[in-house]
Amino acid sequence: MSIPQILMLYRSILERGLVAALRDPVSEEGVSYNVDSLYTILRYHVGLYDEKGRAEKALGKMLRPSLLLFTTQELKGDVKGALPAAVALELVHNFSLIHDDIQDHDELRRGRSTVWKLIGVAQAINAGDLMYSIAIRNALVAGADAAGAIIDAARVMIEGQGLDLSFESRWVDANSYIDMIDKKTGALICCAFRTGGIIAQTDGATLDRLTSLGRELGRAFQIRDDLLGVWGDGDVTGKPQGSDIRRKKKSFPVVLAMQRADEEGKMLLERVYAQERVTDGDVERVIGMMTDLGVKKSGEETVERHLKEASGYLERLPLSEEGRGLMNELIEYLARREK
Amino acid sequence: MSIPQILMLYRSILERGLVAALRDPVSEEGVSYNVDSLYTILRYHVGLYDEKGRAEKALGKMLRPSLLLFTTQELKGDVKGALPAAVALELVHNFSLIHDDIQDHDELRRGRSTVWKLIGVAQAINAGDLMYSIAIRNALVAGADAAGAIIDAARVMIEGQGLDLSFESRWVDANSYIDMIDKKTGALICCAFRTGGIIAQTDGATLDRLTSLGRELGRAFQIRDDLLGVWGDGDVTGKPQGSDIRRKKKSFPVVLAMQRADEEGKMLLERVYAQERVTDGDVERVIGMMTDLGVKKSGEETVERHLKEASGYLERLPLSEEGRGLMNELIEYLARREK
Repeated sequence: MSIPQILMLYRSILERGLVAALRDPVSEEGVSYNVDSLYTILRYHVGLYDEKGRAEKALGKMLRPSLLLFTTQELKGDVKGALPAAVALELVHNFSLIHDDIQDHDELRRGRSTVWKLIGVAQAINAGDLMYSIAIRNALVAGADAAGAIIDAARVMIEGQGLDLSFESRWVDANSYIDMIDKKTGALICCAFRTGGIIAQTDGATLDRLTSLGRELGRAFQIRDDLLGVWGDGDVTGKPQGSDIRRKKKSFPVVLAMQRADEEGKMLLERVYAQERVTDGDVERVIGMMTDLGVKKSGEETVERHLKEASGYLERLPLSEEGRGLMNELIEYLARREK
Repeated sequence: MSIPQILMLYRSILERGLVAALRDPVSEEGVSYNVDSLYTILRYHVGLYDEKGRAEKALGKMLRPSLLLFTTQELKGDVKGALPAAVALELVHNFSLIHDDIQDHDELRRGRSTVWKLIGVAQAINAGDLMYSIAIRNALVAGADAAGAIIDAARVMIEGQGLDLSFESRWVDANSYIDMIDKKTGALICCAFRTGGIIAQTDGATLDRLTSLGRELGRAFQIRDDLLGVWGDGDVTGKPQGSDIRRKKKSFPVVLAMQRADEEGKMLLERVYAQERVTDGDVERVIGMMTDLGVKKSGEETVERHLKEASGYLERLPLSEEGRGLMNELIEYLARREK
């Protein structure tokens, strides 16, 4: 399925923004200096270059900054003035990915080696810290209110990551799961809409609707992601089928399965998730059980429900007809995306 | 030797600031929620509480925020308004310590378990990220200029940490070493003086002198630290004698020793630093060689030289007589401190 237009509109301006933000710093004497490979690896991570420093087009979806610029534009704000905030948001997201990959021991991201795999854990922690610093510096350029919104969202995202990590050692119910993804994923997506609204100096009621829209889209986005983490086609997602089970993530499908399983099913899940290594057979058994329990169908329904909620908030926002069409296309995409 | 008065003057106001900054966040419904133990561990790390959450007085020297508040006060700025910036600076420093301890595999800091040792590497990375976020949020409260100065300094500090890590796999000369410590240590100390000056709205020439003062003090501070890392009394520093050699840090003494050693000495250093584990015998041999090469004495002279430079800048700053006395006492302390 084709990429929705809203994610294409701002790609070149965002790419230029990222290039400028991740340029090697210039010393007081006007000479650009290379702090070893730190900036190089950041440019690699966001997909501007390959491992050898050759130009590459491997940028991600850039969902968050696109939504920020779109919102600014639709609410008649200064899109050019919003660029540093959009870049900041994309860099906050990317900083979190660098650290996530260390925490999850993931060796690949979108088919490319992860940062820690290339430069080791110690320097990768540092690379993430640097990315975060550059993000905040860009946020400050967008003004105190925008910067405040972005740094608050980053903090909440980090709290969500903390919850997600803590879930590795305990079982949680659906409410705790939703609370976690609202923080881990929802915070930055809400922030994209909100910050667009802040920059366009919109009113409080509109800001509230933008926040609600972001929350619902965030939930739909993350639950869809979790479904792909179990049932996704490895050739399309870049991760093997059942990868989230293999990594023992307490993602949506397993939370729901645990809730619905009978005693025998609960024991299977307990056993699989208590193991050091999850075997192929276990992955198959768990997926089979999830399918029997109707988890996939319920997940898809849950995604649809949140997208419907999102549509409700969308209708009450003062968007152009064209803008509404673009958002509806995005919603359609988020419901069915395969990667 | 007793703690200089400048480090005592602001302790209680800083402690209150840290308590407020690291409080559990409050939800929209006004209920404070505990994001598992993340905020608890941050309060532990800065020394407000012990591992079990019981009140403890284990705060560090708080050198950077004390210098920031002192500078603000001396330059007739609003000390109370400067508190968020001071807290921000202390939290940036503490965030870097959480990540440093992971990178260096250090299990103890000031005689207490490090964060990663208590909650694991993955969650400790996250705890550091959270601390950094809280730091920046506080910096924003102090105004855009102060926030900009703090975030710039944090970025330079992180670049310095990147250099320090990269030194583990190569030999460097004294210039590269000074460049690294100017970034890793100097940036935040410069920032303390500068930000005080910014908040007090001082003139450009004074800001330049404050920056130079910070640079010289930072060098003296770090080189003294490096000397203690080799010759320090373990009972006082909380680290075993020769600990920096054991950890194969390219600190001041070994950089200087490598520069001065004959072929045989160079081979010894190469061999020791190429080993997986450094034995007690190797530590003794390296310390002996350093002593023969006059490294300790040169180090102490270098510290003195930078402190003398610092005194020169100090004289040309518009401080009160009392303030000048406090700074001179600090300089005296930095030259001779044993921990």
